[in-house]
Amino acid sequence: MDGPAVERALRDHAAAVETWLDEALPRPEGATAALVRAMRYAALGGGKRLRAFLVKATGDLFEVPAEQSLAVGGAIELLHAYSLVHDDLPAMDDAAMRRGRPSCHKAFDEATAILAGDALQALAFELLARGVTGIDDATSRALVLGLSRAGGPAGMCGGQMIDLEAERLALDLTGIRELQALKTGALIRFSCEAGCLLGRAGDVDRQALLAYGGRLGLAFQISDDLLDLRGDAALVGKDVGHDAGQGKATFITALGPAGAEAELRRLEAEAAGLLAGFAGRANVLEALFGFVIHRTH
Amino acid sequence: MDGPAVERALRDHAAAVETWLDEALPRPEGATAALVRAMRYAALGGGKRLRAFLVKATGDLFEVPAEQSLAVGGAIELLHAYSLVHDDLPAMDDAAMRRGRPSCHKAFDEATAILAGDALQALAFELLARGVTGIDDATSRALVLGLSRAGGPAGMCGGQMIDLEAERLALDLTGIRELQALKTGALIRFSCEAGCLLGRAGDVDRQALLAYGGRLGLAFQISDDLLDLRGDAALVGKDVGHDAGQGKATFITALGPAGAEAELRRLEAEAAGLLAGFAGRANVLEALFGFVIHRTH
Repeated sequence: MDGPAVERALRDHAAAVETWLDEALPRPEGATAALVRAMRYAALGGGKRLRAFLVKATGDLFEVPAEQSLAVGGAIELLHAYSLVHDDLPAMDDAAMRRGRPSCHKAFDEATAILAGDALQALAFELLARGVTGIDDATSRALVLGLSRAGGPAGMCGGQMIDLEAERLALDLTGIRELQALKTGALIRFSCEAGCLLGRAGDVDRQALLAYGGRLGLAFQISDDLLDLRGDAALVGKDVGHDAGQGKATFITALGPAGAEAELRRLEAEAAGLLAGFAGRANVLEALFGFVIHRTH
Repeated sequence: MDGPAVERALRDHAAAVETWLDEALPRPEGATAALVRAMRYAALGGGKRLRAFLVKATGDLFEVPAEQSLAVGGAIELLHAYSLVHDDLPAMDDAAMRRGRPSCHKAFDEATAILAGDALQALAFELLARGVTGIDDATSRALVLGLSRAGGPAGMCGGQMIDLEAERLALDLTGIRELQALKTGALIRFSCEAGCLLGRAGDVDRQALLAYGGRLGLAFQISDDLLDLRGDAALVGKDVGHDAGQGKATFITALGPAGAEAELRRLEAEAAGLLAGFAGRANVLEALFGFVIHRTH
């Protein structure tokens, strides 16, 4: 699979995720309509849906039914969406734009955005526990456990905390890696694990895909930092040059642009090695890695 | 069981919940220490632990092992604790005090409080999915589903949204009831349901206890409004006279103080009727109702 093909597959799956989320989200009505409108604004209408694609691509290796991958990928995207809403708040990163339009608290107000994020997190767990896709109880429980850990203090929330304190902590490369592993890495790794849980993958395959997810998360962040350095705000859909302006330690400040590029090539080679055991059946995941590090937005 | 006895039972169980939560919460260490400190500040050191007590009292009717009631009650208390942290934020109710000490965003800062709330919600679901207390997979899944619904847009978050808009919506008595049923009622009802789920209660018992929970939630809110009107800030542990000062519609503005008292007596009689089928085995729940409506804090 080449670059344009994986980009097409990602786009097609994102459309399916969008339709699924549109169905899964409540409709705005009655006295809580404003809350539901804000939830839908934050969760619909954009994003690469990388995490949902990872559930599908890993699930496909083990013949997971498409509706199961879609449901679990959708739930993970809701958790991701809530984190973006809260990260953008004035008390956090204070970002006015997200995916090329006003961030949730700008389109609504701060209180509604906080609540919409809270409700999206609850809905993500609700969707994992619902019984409509034939996922059995033990797997549902393992998915809830995995998502809650990836999203909790030892995962995404912990990473955002380190990010908020990054300046004060004056992070070195190890610190930046830890921040990334928690803030974005935990959920990306869990997206790969979710496909394995749904497909009852063996331990060797599961470890290889988790390790792949770790490399992908790291590469995603490094390429994000490079985009922030070089990118075009109109393409990226949010403010660029933001990190450098804040004097924040990133992979670029720690490694330099050339060092960051070299790290990306190293990670890509490692990812290919981890996928070698699947003998060509994982070429979607290999192509996805290339797409992530060569993307322009 | 008389008033002092149920107050003692509630206090003893609150101490057990406190110990359990202290164990279940992570320890502050490393780069995420500030986040974990804020989570522990918000979740420990106070509160009546009414919701955890309801899980135990309903669970006891069906011989649920104590460690299972405690674990599920603890998880519900974490969800409740997160909601208080977020409700107190400047963009929401802007409350400086909670349980007689500075609210979380005052003791830490706003960003840390938002994240601590987010992480407490994730941890609540993690605790329901963990396998240490012998709760089976199907029950764990039902608990996750119930808690996520009680905490989501059709529950607690929806209720807080209506509360934020209460002035604009100029709620009548029906609207105030809907607000309460979502904002505090959903989680109190779920606490009663959780004991039934753990104990595999039959449908008749389950419906009776859910209906009891609905009455209790309503009574709790009405007595809270009366405390706000008459209470002593030092005893209540938060600002009083707050609602009246904001010209907000409450059960008191809708019913008058005497009407509110009459409503409490009506609810107490209904609750006793709902518990009659348990032939005296539910006298803890009956005494608890009396405690809730006669409490001074």
